[in-house]
Amino acid sequence: MAYELYYWPSIQGRGEFVRLALEDAGVAYVDVARQPEAEGGGVPALMKLMQDTELERPPYAPPFLKDGVLVISQTANILQYLGPKIGLAPADEAGRLWAHQLQLLVTDFIKEAHDTHHPLGSSLYYEEQKPESLRYSQNFLSARLPKYLGYFERLLERNSTGPEYMVGGAATYVDTSMFQIVAGMRYAFPKAMAGAQAAVPKLLALHDRVATRPRLAAYLASNRRIPFNEKGIFRRYPELDR
Amino acid sequence: MAYELYYWPSIQGRGEFVRLALEDAGVAYVDVARQPEAEGGGVPALMKLMQDTELERPPYAPPFLKDGVLVISQTANILQYLGPKIGLAPADEAGRLWAHQLQLLVTDFIKEAHDTHHPLGSSLYYEEQKPESLRYSQNFLSARLPKYLGYFERLLERNSTGPEYMVGGAATYVDTSMFQIVAGMRYAFPKAMAGAQAAVPKLLALHDRVATRPRLAAYLASNRRIPFNEKGIFRRYPELDR
Repeated sequence: MAYELYYWPSIQGRGEFVRLALEDAGVAYVDVARQPEAEGGGVPALMKLMQDTELERPPYAPPFLKDGVLVISQTANILQYLGPKIGLAPADEAGRLWAHQLQLLVTDFIKEAHDTHHPLGSSLYYEEQKPESLRYSQNFLSARLPKYLGYFERLLERNSTGPEYMVGGAATYVDTSMFQIVAGMRYAFPKAMAGAQAAVPKLLALHDRVATRPRLAAYLASNRRIPFNEKGIFRRYPELDR
Repeated sequence: MAYELYYWPSIQGRGEFVRLALEDAGVAYVDVARQPEAEGGGVPALMKLMQDTELERPPYAPPFLKDGVLVISQTANILQYLGPKIGLAPADEAGRLWAHQLQLLVTDFIKEAHDTHHPLGSSLYYEEQKPESLRYSQNFLSARLPKYLGYFERLLERNSTGPEYMVGGAATYVDTSMFQIVAGMRYAFPKAMAGAQAAVPKLLALHDRVATRPRLAAYLASNRRIPFNEKGIFRRYPELDR
């Protein structure tokens, strides 16, 4: 049976990191909430599973993945589970722990990228926290972003099998996640990224290589790839990009 | 060889979740940065490993655990690795994924608890973001805290083996993490917790049971347990607790 991914149907968000891995692997999956409501899809399908009082282990929040009777949530946990099954994880335990550790750092990064427009909490609108968003963003762009990107660049430099992949000598879900970070930051903060990316040539080259992998290129050109927008993690608010 | 834990020596912080598991399991470990500098400990030991340019897979930030040649970071990843080896993880894969998923939610929770005093970024002092901290805290205490605690309570209610443990019918690192969340919130926000905890009796009972487990009780009474303070995640700023 195909994997079932449950995530908000109108944004890339955290779910996109799972979509990218599944698409790159060429594995069949159903993006449940993007199916018609009349066919059991839509947001109601997502809410139904979350609110199912019969479920002993209900997910706290999307994304979650259903594989038979297993329901797995937390983006990095889903990727850790899927990776070996879809050919996007290292074969050895040390490599898997390392890949997961990097994905957890991606989790930290996207939380901070999200908080550039929601520093006081996600229950308030951006419009209710604009001055705070600017202060947060200035620190994020000047200090945090270079620190994260510089770390990822350093890992590519130090990879003993070469700078082709983030982990060892083969593609993993960490590569597709790096693609998404670069793509998202270029969308949200084009000016800041134009400056920051000069220092991380190997990371940019990785982004470009991932984008041209045949299955991923086909996905990115398809309507399955939801465009970036101002409801997701990476939002283009030009007033924050300076 | 004993496990080596690397974490800031003067706070509980994220490292405490690892310390609690190791202490509860009664496993030998060295809290490296709390050893004398003259004997290779202290913060310099921590920095030295992080900045070791010979290390192909350097950790991004503390805590990290050294087990022979393996260096593992990210709190939840460390616990996932340690759990099965120290008898604090479920035996089956589904149970382990579930425990890890809950620990990742703990990670989310402690990031939010931290941001009550640092909503605009950790490079600014609390004193530079006091009004923002108050707005963040009000939302955190009124909306986020009850949502998180209510979820954990619901899991205890739904546990088909009973409400004794978070995962299945035996102790895991998720239980020690729940203890720490309750203890930390009681320290930082005694007023808010006095209200919130009435709704989560099973979670409080779990906290109490964990605190009286013999090895954990001995740890908590020892000087190995660093007292809560205003440098860690859970800080008592009475002006935020209302």
